[in-house]
Amino acid sequence: MIRVAIIGATGYTALELIKILLRHPEVEITTLTSRSEGSPHVASVHPQLAGRIDLPMVDLGPVEVASRADVAFSCLPHGVTSNLVPRLLDAGMRVVDLSADYRLNSAEVYAEWYGQKHNDPDRLGKVAYGLPELFREQIRPARLVANPGCYPTSAILPLAPLIKAGLVAPREIIVDAKSGISGAGRTPKLTTHFPECNESIAAYNVGRHRHTPEIEQVLSTASGRAVEVIFTPHLVPMDRGILSTTYTQPLTELTEEKVLQTLRDFYSSEPFIRVVDHLPGTKDTVGTNFCDITARIVRGRLITISCIDNLIKGASGAAVQNFNLMHGFAETTAL
Amino acid sequence: MIRVAIIGATGYTALELIKILLRHPEVEITTLTSRSEGSPHVASVHPQLAGRIDLPMVDLGPVEVASRADVAFSCLPHGVTSNLVPRLLDAGMRVVDLSADYRLNSAEVYAEWYGQKHNDPDRLGKVAYGLPELFREQIRPARLVANPGCYPTSAILPLAPLIKAGLVAPREIIVDAKSGISGAGRTPKLTTHFPECNESIAAYNVGRHRHTPEIEQVLSTASGRAVEVIFTPHLVPMDRGILSTTYTQPLTELTEEKVLQTLRDFYSSEPFIRVVDHLPGTKDTVGTNFCDITARIVRGRLITISCIDNLIKGASGAAVQNFNLMHGFAETTAL
Amino acid sequence: MIRVAIIGATGYTALELIKILLRHPEVEITTLTSRSEGSPHVASVHPQLAGRIDLPMVDLGPVEVASRADVAFSCLPHGVTSNLVPRLLDAGMRVVDLSADYRLNSAEVYAEWYGQKHNDPDRLGKVAYGLPELFREQIRPARLVANPGCYPTSAILPLAPLIKAGLVAPREIIVDAKSGISGAGRTPKLTTHFPECNESIAAYNVGRHRHTPEIEQVLSTASGRAVEVIFTPHLVPMDRGILSTTYTQPLTELTEEKVLQTLRDFYSSEPFIRVVDHLPGTKDTVGTNFCDITARIVRGRLITISCIDNLIKGASGAAVQNFNLMHGFAETTAL
Amino acid sequence: MIRVAIIGATGYTALELIKILLRHPEVEITTLTSRSEGSPHVASVHPQLAGRIDLPMVDLGPVEVASRADVAFSCLPHGVTSNLVPRLLDAGMRVVDLSADYRLNSAEVYAEWYGQKHNDPDRLGKVAYGLPELFREQIRPARLVANPGCYPTSAILPLAPLIKAGLVAPREIIVDAKSGISGAGRTPKLTTHFPECNESIAAYNVGRHRHTPEIEQVLSTASGRAVEVIFTPHLVPMDRGILSTTYTQPLTELTEEKVLQTLRDFYSSEPFIRVVDHLPGTKDTVGTNFCDITARIVRGRLITISCIDNLIKGASGAAVQNFNLMHGFAETTAL
Repeated sequence: MIRVAIIGATGYTALELIKILLRHPEVEITTLTSRSEGSPHVASVHPQLAGRIDLPMVDLGPVEVASRADVAFSCLPHGVTSNLVPRLLDAGMRVVDLSADYRLNSAEVYAEWYGQKHNDPDRLGKVAYGLPELFREQIRPARLVANPGCYPTSAILPLAPLIKAGLVAPREIIVDAKSGISGAGRTPKLTTHFPECNESIAAYNVGRHRHTPEIEQVLSTASGRAVEVIFTPHLVPMDRGILSTTYTQPLTELTEEKVLQTLRDFYSSEPFIRVVDHLPGTKDTVGTNFCDITARIVRGRLITISCIDNLIKGASGAAVQNFNLMHGFAETTAL
Repeated sequence: MIRVAIIGATGYTALELIKILLRHPEVEITTLTSRSEGSPHVASVHPQLAGRIDLPMVDLGPVEVASRADVAFSCLPHGVTSNLVPRLLDAGMRVVDLSADYRLNSAEVYAEWYGQKHNDPDRLGKVAYGLPELFREQIRPARLVANPGCYPTSAILPLAPLIKAGLVAPREIIVDAKSGISGAGRTPKLTTHFPECNESIAAYNVGRHRHTPEIEQVLSTASGRAVEVIFTPHLVPMDRGILSTTYTQPLTELTEEKVLQTLRDFYSSEPFIRVVDHLPGTKDTVGTNFCDITARIVRGRLITISCIDNLIKGASGAAVQNFNLMHGFAETTAL
Repeated sequence: MIRVAIIGATGYTALELIKILLRHPEVEITTLTSRSEGSPHVASVHPQLAGRIDLPMVDLGPVEVASRADVAFSCLPHGVTSNLVPRLLDAGMRVVDLSADYRLNSAEVYAEWYGQKHNDPDRLGKVAYGLPELFREQIRPARLVANPGCYPTSAILPLAPLIKAGLVAPREIIVDAKSGISGAGRTPKLTTHFPECNESIAAYNVGRHRHTPEIEQVLSTASGRAVEVIFTPHLVPMDRGILSTTYTQPLTELTEEKVLQTLRDFYSSEPFIRVVDHLPGTKDTVGTNFCDITARIVRGRLITISCIDNLIKGASGAAVQNFNLMHGFAETTAL
Repeated sequence: MIRVAIIGATGYTALELIKILLRHPEVEITTLTSRSEGSPHVASVHPQLAGRIDLPMVDLGPVEVASRADVAFSCLPHGVTSNLVPRLLDAGMRVVDLSADYRLNSAEVYAEWYGQKHNDPDRLGKVAYGLPELFREQIRPARLVANPGCYPTSAILPLAPLIKAGLVAPREIIVDAKSGISGAGRTPKLTTHFPECNESIAAYNVGRHRHTPEIEQVLSTASGRAVEVIFTPHLVPMDRGILSTTYTQPLTELTEEKVLQTLRDFYSSEPFIRVVDHLPGTKDTVGTNFCDITARIVRGRLITISCIDNLIKGASGAAVQNFNLMHGFAETTAL
């Protein structure tokens, strides 16, 4: 049994992690941490978990966490994370980090987009990026895995094979993405107050969303080409799900059949990628670790449409997939 | 032209008030107040109002407000309100108060349910309760009108005629009410955070919602009998609307026809009450000042079902209806 | 391995059944039937199932079904069901029936509420009612189990222990229930067309919903008293979930503590009943087989509030729970 | 008073038309037609209208309609419309047609995209396109106005000024549009069944939506350049609203300020266009005839974001705006 700690267990990704890990035959959740006063029972924070797990949420330091668990899933905000993770690693733990702190290779890019100096810059560029479909071999032996962002997962999976195969121009890529509200986290804000965001769709952070450099870096790494994207996120009145519609410029004569076949070949052994003929909706993937992808050609442009559950394949499902890889379990265990 | 001030203009009831009053041919909105720093333009707080009204939201005292306006619609929270209203009245204004501060007749009952001493206890019991269908004559000359709560409006309108006519027992009344989320106001809270309350229905404040004594007092006044209700509010994942399902014990042999006829007779001259045969849904009344009511008899019990838009007939529409009455305008003006 | 057939596999309960049974280590789904032309692949009807199960949906008679499977979950409409089930049983299958056809004990009551003659009246009264918390011993050996209705499950579970213990009057029970739209099935109708039912709540079938006699019969059987309920269902704009608020008249002096303790004692060994202190929301149970229950006393009345996922504990989860009991598997397997 | 008939009054655009026209001081609605049997009262089809209009919905021919009304708003489906409109015109009526039948200039293009021969091809190319912001002078004297499609309105308004000014390339335009479900009409279908489309976003009709040639034709006419667009519509789980995100290639050095100023100059006298600095959400325009527009430059691409209420500015509000123009009323009357 692997003893697992979840660091920062009050949010939605932690809740999903717990629900998934409770199904995992090789995992024992031993520790949940949060800064909440009075060590509340996890079920008082997440009523869905009543009767399913009997643990308090405690405020522990890294050494204490390491004495109770072998692996940490860190669900803390960026910035805070890179203060803690080195100490968890030093204490001997393996870590799957769900924050953005270890996804980028460059401290300069991090500082530019996240508006703060990185706390652990020397480690950047040496951390496995936790998208098994592209980086499985780096993930297996990793002591630290940077779990991908939700938007990047939805955008990278359809685009990487096409850019890598030289089918589309790497610098004229548009990603028009639509996300459910849980992507904004669990802290109440006016923008996520029900009567504000319900019955409305709006773009936000146009041209300056922090997932932009992550998408570009990973697509560049995966394809060996310098990739640039225009990334426009939108907030959709639903709990979960991301749909990404991408527009790219073909570099060769393309048919829909050829594009779909390229995708099918690339992902032929992947348990969680479904290349489909129909136009998928986010509901097809909600509650699952699947990414559904299709493609269309319109007036000479290539359009891909892909969707995931932002909290599963876009966060906690991917984290468990990485955990499985790191420990030699079947990759689909509990997923 | 009546010059109007809206006190506390950042919330949803103020937004609806402004939208209604902009259609009112006899009204000029001259003043919007809030405690926001920097006197923001109203459209920066309510983007829906861009290009429709050109006013800053300013932090003004009652004398300044009175120098700019003849009538104040007060949208402040309870407690704060009863500090301000006496000063607005002293400064010569007429006031429609959308808070709960002047709805109850007794300072003791207020203290018990609102958990604080009333700031202006001597005025209690002398304020017109702004439900025109029951108290039109008191409203016309009033200098201060206490605008009803949203739940009370939805529950009192179907029940008052039946209790008054002696058709049902006044002490065994159950009101099972369902409200859209805007009823909880515009301040972000975890309970109204989209991913928490979307796709879920729950009861709240069972047995201790502050609208309970208001419903009982007004039904007692209107019917001349001592009324007791069991009131159970629920939060429904929608922006607006309240549906109240009431269960009462008939005191005589009743038929649905007789009950509906009693309601139709009682409200025969009312422009905003629709007694209908079908089972109404909240959407039938959303965006309007209507209250739709029907009745059924099941196993000897009388059930009424009524619905309103909580922000219109349950708040700002009723406020304008009261304003019209107070100024001798046609009651339906702008509604 | 138990070979399983799902009869009538195009609807929502069938979809949930498939998703649950795919996790069941002792089950092989061998057969999906529907009347759709051309034997469509299940994933073309349920895109969520792409890549998870590879079966066509075929139009088969009972003998053919019996040759391919040991157990049938029947998801057909009432009326049709009672024509088929006898033939499935005769062919040697065990059957969990998710329709209403075998829930009532009386062909007369069935005819009165369902508006048609029963096709298999002699079997009525001899079929196990599939609520394990009340009828576990009858379910274990059963060849046919009548899976409960969704509303009845949500109403019976909180009420049965209280009536049985003599705490509340059995004839003055009000059940005010609120359901997500999936409860109306998968056939498009105007009432479930998104722009009609979204952003609205309404009651329907007041006094004549077919789950009324089912609730009364099962509560009467479970408690040994003649039970009568007033049942008012409402449609709530959400996918899933039922919340039932019940109002009963205590027969003795009651405290909330005593009521909660009675419920806790009654369900102390039950894996899927959570008696909670807080007011539960449907989201706490969505996607699970749990029923959350609490109680309050208001002005001398006892109120219970309970919630379930209408498609899981209210349908397919309960069906698998029954299946597990029938086959001696751990009752929580796959749930 | 202008006597108005609404042809095909059962759908959502007719409902909105009636609600708007009831506020119009110069209009009397005299006639509502539909093919429903038994001439149902309009309130039995649209419960929102109970007590507000007292008319049956009748099945009338064009001559009868013309004997009762001066102007017809036609809300029939395409195809049917072009059979009726010539007869309404011949009978002396002026017509605002909300279908697609008279929007395109070419019978060939119509046949290609709508899959059927046009019934009235000679009139094509001579009909005023009812977007007052671009074609006000043609609309004023028109006897027949083709009311624009909802998506075209949302896409043309931000793009026309920019293409006309030569700021962006006319052949590399991407329109990624997101619509509420009411855009799909009132006929129940599986794709608009609540549990199918709620909590999900999906693209549909990619590359083959019929609004594509309409957008291209009108933008070409308005700008004098041959315009080509890639148009991708998506269905969003909300009642109303369209948000269009467009991506274009600048032809000159552009700044956001310059683009916004171009838009502000172009629309400086328009009562219903709001060029805003913030990122608008559909809720800002719901229930109004406004179109909110903003622009951003990202990595050298120009992005516009615009939103409307699809049933108001995208349909019935625009229809009344056209009606007002045709009759010399203030353009904002009733809007």
